[in-house]
Amino acid sequence: MIGIDWGTTRFRAFRIGRDGAIRDRRAGPKGILNVPDGRFGETLRDEIGPWLAAGEDKVILSGMIGSRQGWLEAPYLPCPAGPSELAGALIDIGFDWARVKLVPGLSGTDPSGVSEVMRGEETQVLGVPALLRDGGIACLPGTHSKWVRIKDGRIVGFTTHMTGEAFGALRGYTILGRTMRDGPADGPVFDAGVARSADPGGLLHHVFGVRAQALSGRLTETDAPAYLSGILIGHEVRAALAQAAGSVVQVIGAPELTALYAAAIAACGGYAERHDGEAAARGLALIAEQAQWN
Amino acid sequence: MIGIDWGTTRFRAFRIGRDGAIRDRRAGPKGILNVPDGRFGETLRDEIGPWLAAGEDKVILSGMIGSRQGWLEAPYLPCPAGPSELAGALIDIGFDWARVKLVPGLSGTDPSGVSEVMRGEETQVLGVPALLRDGGIACLPGTHSKWVRIKDGRIVGFTTHMTGEAFGALRGYTILGRTMRDGPADGPVFDAGVARSADPGGLLHHVFGVRAQALSGRLTETDAPAYLSGILIGHEVRAALAQAAGSVVQVIGAPELTALYAAAIAACGGYAERHDGEAAARGLALIAEQAQWN
Repeated sequence: MIGIDWGTTRFRAFRIGRDGAIRDRRAGPKGILNVPDGRFGETLRDEIGPWLAAGEDKVILSGMIGSRQGWLEAPYLPCPAGPSELAGALIDIGFDWARVKLVPGLSGTDPSGVSEVMRGEETQVLGVPALLRDGGIACLPGTHSKWVRIKDGRIVGFTTHMTGEAFGALRGYTILGRTMRDGPADGPVFDAGVARSADPGGLLHHVFGVRAQALSGRLTETDAPAYLSGILIGHEVRAALAQAAGSVVQVIGAPELTALYAAAIAACGGYAERHDGEAAARGLALIAEQAQWN
Repeated sequence: MIGIDWGTTRFRAFRIGRDGAIRDRRAGPKGILNVPDGRFGETLRDEIGPWLAAGEDKVILSGMIGSRQGWLEAPYLPCPAGPSELAGALIDIGFDWARVKLVPGLSGTDPSGVSEVMRGEETQVLGVPALLRDGGIACLPGTHSKWVRIKDGRIVGFTTHMTGEAFGALRGYTILGRTMRDGPADGPVFDAGVARSADPGGLLHHVFGVRAQALSGRLTETDAPAYLSGILIGHEVRAALAQAAGSVVQVIGAPELTALYAAAIAACGGYAERHDGEAAARGLALIAEQAQWN
């Protein structure tokens, strides 16, 4: 079968054998925002045509391709949900060269009852075997980071943190940007930012300190972005771990980003294991296995 | 004497009698950024010429006029400092029509030892008699809010919170702005935002919830700005009160803003008293009284 993680800016496809192993993969910039005039069918055929020609005829999609801006808007499936609930809620999409099914996103609430939604992260989470087996916590860092709670093989709830986007807004559109230039994302200065997030005073005070430290010469312009990033990720991780004491956190995503989060989680007293985005392939295969394809 | 609070965007002058009462006042847009080519002397004469002609000849300035972008850069005076230390550190400025002295800003540290500076807020704080008499906490809300600790008649330390500027960046340059239109700043939705800041999950999660609540129809576009403002001010106030348990907070500033902060402080279990920006006039008069004018 063919599993596709089709997001806002990226298209990633996996050809998966009967044994669940990835036999081939391709990735490119054809995220839904880069597909003109709703030509999703044509784009899909262009991207995976050779695999279809080789006889594959089951295709399963997840991610923002199921949003209003995508191919077909899939209603969110409410939590709790695992592979069998998602397999039972797949949506068929008309396509001339293969059977195509769409994984719906999930809706849920944070621990205070505030509504939350996701599209695509559910598939990555279900691709981490330890989470399905033992339950626990997954963290998917990014523009809008997700922290996902899994119990008895099902996703039970999740929270979103605007960490990546807040970093961009604070760096780009406040006084903090005046003392910043591009520099390394990790290292001792990132760790110092994470440590700073444990001090009294709160996030809004700590971020102002980026400027104070820069003006007093204790922070160089190229170190300032990593320090700000450490403060923000430190605050996110501390708040999320406070609700998940003692859990191992399964961090899923691009290696540069999961490395930063694993370091922050360790510094905040947690324990992290890292997984790359190919977790999506395993999740897609698992859902496809349980689906009705006739 | 004449006391002037000369900030980045505003110029506010007070003519003060020997009894300390304000006899006259004027305010306008001639903040330091609106004075071309360093013409501070000419601007001062234009603004207070009639009072000088009436015989006033002592002028005391505080605020960003003492910064690098101002008339003359005054070195920061280290904390702890009260009216007599500030009076002893005044800087004379050459001016043909009166004696002019400049109040230096203060430098200090937050409770973790991170450096902090202020220019102008020290004068407003010293203009609140209860703080000089009993000590306590002052809050000066704004783009960069200050929380100031006063003991035995002297400012001992302070912290800055980037609340106002973070609000602008999040509203203007993140996805949150897409579901926002101008609306009332206060009211039950602001209070709900303040209450939200007490929930688990942290600031970066709570601000994302502004979008989640808007998309799910629980928050209108015109209510969303007050809800975001409540979340941010709630986080600031909670973090600041955690270091000042049991104190009365003297909130100093424009009435619209001090009303919001007083409401948030009360909701977070504190007690607030409000003062308008004319506290600056009393602070300037107090420092002027203790200065050497010959």
